[in-house]
Amino acid sequence: MAHSSICIVGLGLLGGSIGMALKHRGAAGRVLGVARRAESLALARERGAIDEGSLDAVAAVGGADLVVLCVPVRAITTWLERLAPHVPAGAVVTDVGSTKSEVVATGERLLPGRFLGGHPMAGSERAGIEAADPDLFEGAWWALTPGPDAAPVAPLAEMVAALGARPLMLPPGEHDRAVAATSHLPHAVAAAVAAVVADAFAVVPAAAHLAAGSYRDVTRVAASSPEVWRDVCLTNREALLGALDALASHLGELRAAVEKQDAEGIERFFGRGREGKARVEDAHRRGRGRGRAQ
Amino acid sequence: MAHSSICIVGLGLLGGSIGMALKHRGAAGRVLGVARRAESLALARERGAIDEGSLDAVAAVGGADLVVLCVPVRAITTWLERLAPHVPAGAVVTDVGSTKSEVVATGERLLPGRFLGGHPMAGSERAGIEAADPDLFEGAWWALTPGPDAAPVAPLAEMVAALGARPLMLPPGEHDRAVAATSHLPHAVAAAVAAVVADAFAVVPAAAHLAAGSYRDVTRVAASSPEVWRDVCLTNREALLGALDALASHLGELRAAVEKQDAEGIERFFGRGREGKARVEDAHRRGRGRGRAQ
Repeated sequence: MAHSSICIVGLGLLGGSIGMALKHRGAAGRVLGVARRAESLALARERGAIDEGSLDAVAAVGGADLVVLCVPVRAITTWLERLAPHVPAGAVVTDVGSTKSEVVATGERLLPGRFLGGHPMAGSERAGIEAADPDLFEGAWWALTPGPDAAPVAPLAEMVAALGARPLMLPPGEHDRAVAATSHLPHAVAAAVAAVVADAFAVVPAAAHLAAGSYRDVTRVAASSPEVWRDVCLTNREALLGALDALASHLGELRAAVEKQDAEGIERFFGRGREGKARVEDAHRRGRGRGRAQ
Repeated sequence: MAHSSICIVGLGLLGGSIGMALKHRGAAGRVLGVARRAESLALARERGAIDEGSLDAVAAVGGADLVVLCVPVRAITTWLERLAPHVPAGAVVTDVGSTKSEVVATGERLLPGRFLGGHPMAGSERAGIEAADPDLFEGAWWALTPGPDAAPVAPLAEMVAALGARPLMLPPGEHDRAVAATSHLPHAVAAAVAAVVADAFAVVPAAAHLAAGSYRDVTRVAASSPEVWRDVCLTNREALLGALDALASHLGELRAAVEKQDAEGIERFFGRGREGKARVEDAHRRGRGRGRAQ
């Protein structure tokens, strides 16, 4: 057992699922949970996500050898500032935020050699400990993003593997660039398509009935929380702007081809999408690119 | 039984499924199928999609009281030119093309009072009669798009209902505007996102592992046939350009908000997507907007 006492700060979907996974798999000696409300602690205990609950984060981290910050991404740096002075000398801190550059810079500055950023590639449109699931991470990749002053990777990679996930090491900047394309862009596009269809629906009500499978799939994640995605976007400015510009450039090529009725150009656009998808999904299936060296 | 002898030209996914649905439901006296290859006819007969097969479309339509053109969208007008002189006086012609303005203009010009455009909102990424399914249209909306010289709507609406689908009357222009937003735009966006992620993957191979549910959903239809989507785009120029511009405008707002770190603006963008989706799906579920008057 790599860590005997793990403190989870924030008991939502991810924090709750980590606690449940740790306990179900016997991967921690003791799981301590921190939440803002006593009811959340009671619920977490009831669901078997924690051994003990505390409303006092400062006191709670004092007894931990691993602290996992499971708070909203924009709150992570604030929590780091607040808790860093109270983290025991031998303990390590990690997080589960969707973007990593800002968090890693702050964490490694405040806790040199004792912070390691993380991001499990698992989630749900549902939120809260009610949706928590001990198998949420089963088979999922879990990015660990060491910067220049990171904590050692091995013990945390071991814990991630103990939860059923597959650790994936990559630098915070590469992580943020990748998720801007693979996750933030799809969410942005889903919201934009949903808005365009709603505009069309206002003029042609039958549009609601003409919305078939492609509409439903493309807009599924448009149901996600605007607050969560606001925060993700705010913490990944450069990479997201790059992804949006790349998208605009591809769609601009399609627009030009449609405008001049350029059959080859249109076909090339759709062909590039199909090939790109095949290439990425092939790599995804084959599990290549795993654990790149620093 | 509204039609005693139905001739289906083109025995792919849609033509095959229409034939199977007609025969399974006893909704036609006799189903005659036209294909280019004898093997296609044999397969259609084997699958129970047709009673009789013919390689000679001109001869086949001569004995029909309803002709259903199930050929690729860009081929429909060519088939109309070729077959119109041979359609019996009392017979009606319809089609299943994804875009309607061009087809309806040609069909009603060549066959005034005897053509009625149609578009079943059902399909699959799979193609060919191998994927045909007698229940493909069960519960699906089926647009009927009369122009100024259309055939009477009632008999065809009855046949559509007999296949399990729900007829939805709307003018061709409104149809094309609606599907540009609800179907063509999602396909364009799926291909563009797939291309952006493939570009990111070329630089950061781990991107393939960071591609989670939002990527898979948004890009699912990027696996569709580039040739089919080329043709759809070519036949819906104005409406698609309008939808692409509307999308660019929404994404441009997000870009500006991200650039200046405007939290409210970003949240407004995602909120608009979520509300738009809820509004459209509510109408979809409640079946409003059905059968708008001409």
